Parts: sequence; C-alpha cells; structure tokens
Amino acid sequence: MAKDKQVEQITDMEVDFAQWYTDVVKKAELIDYSGVKGFYVLRPYGYAIWENIQQAMDGKFKATGHENVSMPILIPESLLQKEKDHVDGFAPEVAWVTHGGSEELGERLCIRPTSETLFCDHYSRVVRSWRDLPKLYNQWCSVLRWEKTTRPFLRHREFLWQEGHTVHATETEARDETLQMLEVYADVAENWLAMPVIKGRKTEKEKFAGAMETYSIECMMHDTKALQAGTSHYFGTGFAQAFDITFTDKDNKIQHCHQTSWGTSTRLIGGIVMTHGDNNGLALPPKVAPVQVVIIPVAMHKPGVLDAARALLERLRQAGVRVKLDDSDQSPGWKFAEYEMKGVPLRLEMGPRDIEAGQCVLVPRVGGEKTVVALDELEAQIQIGLDGVQQALYHRAKTNLDNHTFTAQTAKEAAAIIEEKGGFIKAMWCGALACEEALKNEYSITSRNIPFEQEWVGEVCLVCGKPSDTMVVWGIAY
Amino acid sequence: MAKDKQVEQITDMEVDFAQWYTDVVKKAELIDYSGVKGFYVLRPYGYAIWENIQQAMDGKFKATGHENVSMPILIPESLLQKEKDHVDGFAPEVAWVTHGGSEELGERLCIRPTSETLFCDHYSRVVRSWRDLPKLYNQWCSVLRWEKTTRPFLRHREFLWQEGHTVHATETEARDETLQMLEVYADVAENWLAMPVIKGRKTEKEKFAGAMETYSIECMMHDTKALQAGTSHYFGTGFAQAFDITFTDKDNKIQHCHQTSWGTSTRLIGGIVMTHGDNNGLALPPKVAPVQVVIIPVAMHKPGVLDAARALLERLRQAGVRVKLDDSDQSPGWKFAEYEMKGVPLRLEMGPRDIEAGQCVLVPRVGGEKTVVALDELEAQIQIGLDGVQQALYHRAKTNLDNHTFTAQTAKEAAAIIEEKGGFIKAMWCGALACEEALKNEYSITSRNIPFEQEWVGEVCLVCGKPSDTMVVWGIAY
Repeated sequence: MAKDKQVEQITDMEVDFAQWYTDVVKKAELIDYSGVKGFYVLRPYGYAIWENIQQAMDGKFKATGHENVSMPILIPESLLQKEKDHVDGFAPEVAWVTHGGSEELGERLCIRPTSETLFCDHYSRVVRSWRDLPKLYNQWCSVLRWEKTTRPFLRHREFLWQEGHTVHATETEARDETLQMLEVYADVAENWLAMPVIKGRKTEKEKFAGAMETYSIECMMHDTKALQAGTSHYFGTGFAQAFDITFTDKDNKIQHCHQTSWGTSTRLIGGIVMTHGDNNGLALPPKVAPVQVVIIPVAMHKPGVLDAARALLERLRQAGVRVKLDDSDQSPGWKFAEYEMKGVPLRLEMGPRDIEAGQCVLVPRVGGEKTVVALDELEAQIQIGLDGVQQALYHRAKTNLDNHTFTAQTAKEAAAIIEEKGGFIKAMWCGALACEEALKNEYSITSRNIPFEQEWVGEVCLVCGKPSDTMVVWGIAY
Repeated sequence: MAKDKQVEQITDMEVDFAQWYTDVVKKAELIDYSGVKGFYVLRPYGYAIWENIQQAMDGKFKATGHENVSMPILIPESLLQKEKDHVDGFAPEVAWVTHGGSEELGERLCIRPTSETLFCDHYSRVVRSWRDLPKLYNQWCSVLRWEKTTRPFLRHREFLWQEGHTVHATETEARDETLQMLEVYADVAENWLAMPVIKGRKTEKEKFAGAMETYSIECMMHDTKALQAGTSHYFGTGFAQAFDITFTDKDNKIQHCHQTSWGTSTRLIGGIVMTHGDNNGLALPPKVAPVQVVIIPVAMHKPGVLDAARALLERLRQAGVRVKLDDSDQSPGWKFAEYEMKGVPLRLEMGPRDIEAGQCVLVPRVGGEKTVVALDELEAQIQIGLDGVQQALYHRAKTNLDNHTFTAQTAKEAAAIIEEKGGFIKAMWCGALACEEALKNEYSITSRNIPFEQEWVGEVCLVCGKPSDTMVVWGIAY
C-alpha cells in the first residue's frame, strides 16, 4: 500500500531517535546536504517555515521599536581581538579569508561567527550624544562557526539567525531590554511554535563570551533532551570600553554606553521537528506551517470533483489560509501519507458524495478525529481545526515537559533519574563552578538555566552538599 | 539659519556629482563605511528601503510561483570550476577561505560571488523526473566580489541581492521564464522605484559568464550616465550538462534541463539616489520610502499642539501610512531640512492656528506646492499627495531620459554628443565584437543593450559602416 511505503521510509523514533530525526528532515524536504560538511541547503519547505518564524519575530521586534540593519560579513582579525573574553570564545571556531581575488590580504578576515565587534565598531562612530540613544538594531543574516560535530538545524557550520544589538544610556534600560527580548522569544516559542519554555539565567560557565549576564529559553524535545532555543545577553559597559562607545549625557558628561545582544536561529526548526514530530513524520504548528490546509480530491477523475476542489482552494485563499490543492495524479493514499510526513496541520478530503451533500471531511494531523463539515461553515471550521492543532501540539509538549521534570537531592540521584527516565532535573546548586563541572564531566549533565520561577526543591547543593538557595534546571542538551 | 546649515553639508550636484552622491548616502544615513574596503554598513534608513524593495519583489516572485531557499555561502574550488565560462568569469574576483578554526582546509572554499554552481549541485540531486519540474527557486542573500574600485551601493565587495535560479523541461519554458522575470524587474523599477527602464538583450561581450542570452533593464541617472539595474539570463543546457542535471521525460527518455537565473541588488538603492536626488538631498518614491509622511508640529510648546500631532500620527497609522512624528526639541526649520535631506515624500505641518481651523499643511518633497488641507479629508489628501510625488518623480526621470537620448550615425558623432550633452546614443551596430571594443577603448562608451523596441535610426554600423539592422543603446555606465 502506498501509505505504508511512504511511512516505512523513516525509522521509528523509539528505535533510534537520532536516525528518525535525520530521516524526517530529509524526507519532509526541509534540508539537503551540500558538498561541504556542516553547510546545508534549506529547501523551499524548510525555508518557508523560517520565513514564517521571521515574520512573527520581526513584527515583534519592530513593535518594540527595533530597526533592521545589515553589517559586513567579514571581521578583520584586529577588530575581533578587541574584547578579550569575546575573542577567546570565538577565535578557535571561525573561518578565515586570506585571499581576495588574486592578492593575499595584509590582514586575515574572519567570516562573522556573531557580530558584536562590527556593531560596536559602527556604534563607536555614530553614537555621540544622549540624543542618539538608544539604538535598537537587529540583523537577519547567516553566521559561521567551524563546529566539529554537525547536524541538520541543530549544529551547522553556517546557520541563519537574527542578532539584536542595542546600546543604551543606562544600565536599567539595557537590563530591561535584555529581559524584554527574552520575553519576545518565549512568546514566539510558546504561542507560535507551540514549544513550552523555561525562562532563566545562565550560569557563569554557560554564559556568552563577553557578557555579564546571559538569559535563555530552554525547551524539552520529545526524547526529553534539552534544546537552548534563544539567548539574550546583558553586556554592561565591557564592549563599550573596549570599543570606546561613549556619549555626552544631558549634564554634558561623557559616559560609556550599556549594551545588549540577543539571538535565535534556524535551530528553532530543529526544535519544532523534535518537539512535535512522530512516527508518521513532521507535525507543524499551524501558525508557522507553510501549508496549513491541504486539499485532496477523492475520485478526481469524476466530473465536477476537480472544479469543486479548485473553488475551495480559492475560497480558503480569500480567507487568508495558507492552502494547497494536490491535483497530481498520485493516489489519495499516497497523498495522505505525503502530507502527514510533511506535517500539514489539516487535510481536507472531498469526493463526489461530499460534493453532492455540500460537505467535506477535515482530518487534523494530531489531536483529533476526522470530522464531516458543512461547506457553509468551512472558514469557521477550518479556523477551529487549526486552533485545535496548535493547542494540541502545545499541550502534548507541555505534558512531556511536566512528566519528565524531576527533582533530586544528589548528583547520583539526578544521574540515575536521567539514566532511567530522561528529562530535566530541578535541584539546588551552591554556585560553584567545580560542582557544575563535576556533573558535566561525570554524567554529561549540564545546567540549562537558573529559572526565574524558583522553587525550594531542597536545601543543599546536589554535588557538594553545602547549603544552597538557588534552584537550577539540569539536563542533557543538544 | 538651520535650514541653510543643513543644506550646505552636501556638495551641489552640478559642482561634483560623485561627491554629491557620497555626501547624500552618508548624510541621509543610508550607509556607513566599515573598516574593510568595499564592505558597508546598511544603516536602518538604508536597509528599510531595501526591505520595501524586497517586499514588492518577493510578492511578485511568489505570485509567479517561485519559492525561496537558502544555499550555503561557501563553494568548493572544484565545484566552482565545473562550468568553464562561469569560472573564467568569476574566479579572478572571489574571496578564498583557507582555514576553518585552527585547521588548514584540504580544499579552498570561495565565498559565493553568485550561486549557479550551488543551485546546480542541488538540482542534480533532487531533479529526477518530469514530475519534479519546473523548480522555481530564489534566494535573498549577500555575495562577494573582490572589486578594485568600490562605491556605496554601486559597487560593493559584499552586496545584498536576490538570485533566482530555475530549471525547466523545455527551452520554451525556460526562455519564457527569463523574459517574465525581466518584466517583473521592469515593473518594480518603473512602478515602485519610479525609474523608467530600457528593456533589451545584452551583446555577446556583455552577457553573463555561462549564459546563452542575458537580458537587462537599463536606467538613466540624473547625470545621464547608465545604470544596469537588473539582469535575467537564459542558460540553455550548458550548466545542466556540466552538472549532470537530467530528468526522465513522459516518454521515459533522459533529457538535460534548461535553466535560467536572474538578479537584482542593493545597487537599486544607488539608482534611486542618483535618479531622484537633488541639491537638498534624497527624494524617495513613496512606494518604497521608509517614512512616507513626517509630521512636524509647529509651536510645539503651545497647549494642544503635541496632542493633536499624536492624534494625527495614530490616525495615519490606522490608514496604513508609514508615518513618523518628530517631536524632538529641534527647531521646525532644522526638521524641515532634515526630512528634505532624507527624501521623505510628504511633510505635514500643524500649528495652533491650523488646529483651530481644523486643517494642516502638506508639503510634497517634489512636484508640487504647499497646500492647506481640511483634516476631514486628510487620508484622501495624503493618498493624493503620495501618488502625486510618485508620479512627479517618474515623469522627471522620464523627461531626463527622453531629453538625453540621441541618435548618431558614426562613432565620432556619438562621442561628440556624449562629450557635450551626456546621455544615451541610439545607433545601428553590425554585431562585431571589434566594433564594440573600439567604442569602449576609444571613448569608454559601452553597449547598454539591444532594446526590444527597435527603431531604424540609420542603415550602417556606427563604427565600421557596414549595413546593419540592429539598434543598440550606448552610453557611459556605472
């Protein structure tokens, strides 16, 4: 049967989650491997998800007063070296351009791994007075990091992302910005991508190279591992001092600026796949699905069927639904499997008997049964169906997160739980780097973040046993 | 006076057009120079123009069935070399990556100067059968070309662009696509950017490296020099043969695909500046202006003025106008000059007496006088005002083009006209490369294109005097 043939192409997730993931991103035509390790082609279906994520985020960036810019892709070695912690963090993993045309360059240029140094260089030229502040900039671009291990969406050597970079007159303003953008990320993750998040602060060990504070949203994938889905950094005046970004305040005094940066990437697409997918393939949240509804005519050769399907296509387009009609000569069974694989939220079937009865059949990808819908109520029922899938995905992911979040009093206990059940561990931590490193070295367990919503899950650090008042969420991370 | 102070910051275009151009792109805050020659920062105001151009184009691409993708930024040297004409055209001007992290690479990778090779590599993997065709892909990205001479927007070493790449089953389909996309470019140039174009085919000498035919839209700048504003190429099966892109047709025969590519870039922004700007600065076509209307309150300290201005801001936003209120403490005179410099199409002034009379004052950036408008009719009058500026800009540019397009019978005559009056020359050409090169070497005059709209402006080639039936538009190009 055509349907079985399609489905057997992917490995069951219970058998081999990593292989299931690779199968899905390939079979659903999200990605193609290029000839260079870690560099991927985002195919139309994968890129369209990114465009929908971009649209949601960009709207929120602009609504909060941000403006887009474009910075150069190349950073002179001397510029990268200006902020010490930053260069230490990134220099080992950048790609170097040494020749332009036929000439050897006087100074090596790296392809941006992130653009703090470029934004700072620009800000040092254009910020003069308090009137120029704040500058709230963002850019959509690709960056390069020469990773050893690579995986589609999760770890590319080149990935698409957005990076916000802002300068402010005061610490308070910059800190507010840092947290505001984390909230924007959490909003998009939860309400667009249907991915519940844990918001919190990163430990010293896990924070961004050059930042005073890093905040993150952390998500749990279907296999109960953690995905860091977005970060927001408060820099203090460290970069401003290194790059001499100063302004004259209202009292005519010269001050250093306070800065932030924040980023999310196409990694979010990997997150969507691993949060919502199942053994039939991808399952996409309707809000970012490139195709929200696929119309599949049944008994297409019969008179009137194709015309009726085309009329529905036009009608749903008019209603602002992202809709596709598959009028190819493949069998309905093949098509059912194909769009399940591609994670289309709603399938609309219509055959001669439906047409006669003034109805069609709606089948949600997850969270519901086949329903027969009167064409009179089509737009409303489609909206209800899409909302239903969006909510079902969120609740399924939230249930997974809740069911796989545990508490532990000791490192051993934490490791045993993760070994047996996977998931996240909430446990107290004394704040010492040594304890964090012990957990990582012994069990590959890392701190995800220090959640804003703290709980008293114990009294002492899970490693050293010293009295502790900080709860950390721990896990195995992608 | 504040206004004079602002205006004196830019060189008069009649004194030094090149300096005027550089002054405008800097003072209007479109661009900032980075630390690396030929790499520029697109500042928010400049980037917002690009976003509006993107939106117009992307909508038209999608309406004609195209899909966006993302290809890797790096091309292995061996891949770049697969199509001979193409590598000869681009290899001398690419940037080479030789190191990734701390390791020296086994094979050099170039940063894409254009992505034919990457698209072809991908197509060779995903195209199998006639069912897979056509593939109509586009990508928005940046590319690098290591130019010797660089200028903001006109010639960057890194520039933003879009590149469409399509594969088709038949020559006819591919040729139709090539011309369709040229029409899309012409439509955007004329109806969004208010830049009249000459559509035509490039000569053999001027065509793209690897193309069978290249088509272009050519525009005349205010200084009467030419700007190539967009190109569309028909490749035949040359790339398909080099990259082995084949498909099984309906008769079960294996065939090579026919291909096209087409591109436009941020060069269009340079075109807007040089087509519409004047000695007061930029003048932006309303359809792509980041700010279409700026509200400048007069006597802002008086009670009610600022509230009234804010009410108008909200009202115009609701009406879908891109509107800004400048409520800073600068003088109205300073503001008038500032937004003239920035080319904002309409200025809305409102003071206490206007409020009392239920009116405001609208001042178009070009093509009209100050008018007093009743607030009752504001939305309609703003629309009329914006349409008026859009049309005035187009007509001014069209008049410039018409008034500076001449005919010539000989090379000498052509050179004398361009020397004296500048502009474009329509003249017959025999088709010989030698004649084209003679004109370029002796007078720096190059063929712009062979217009679709041919005229009988003579009988013989302007260089060799042989009978000729092809009219070419010639000029001095950016």
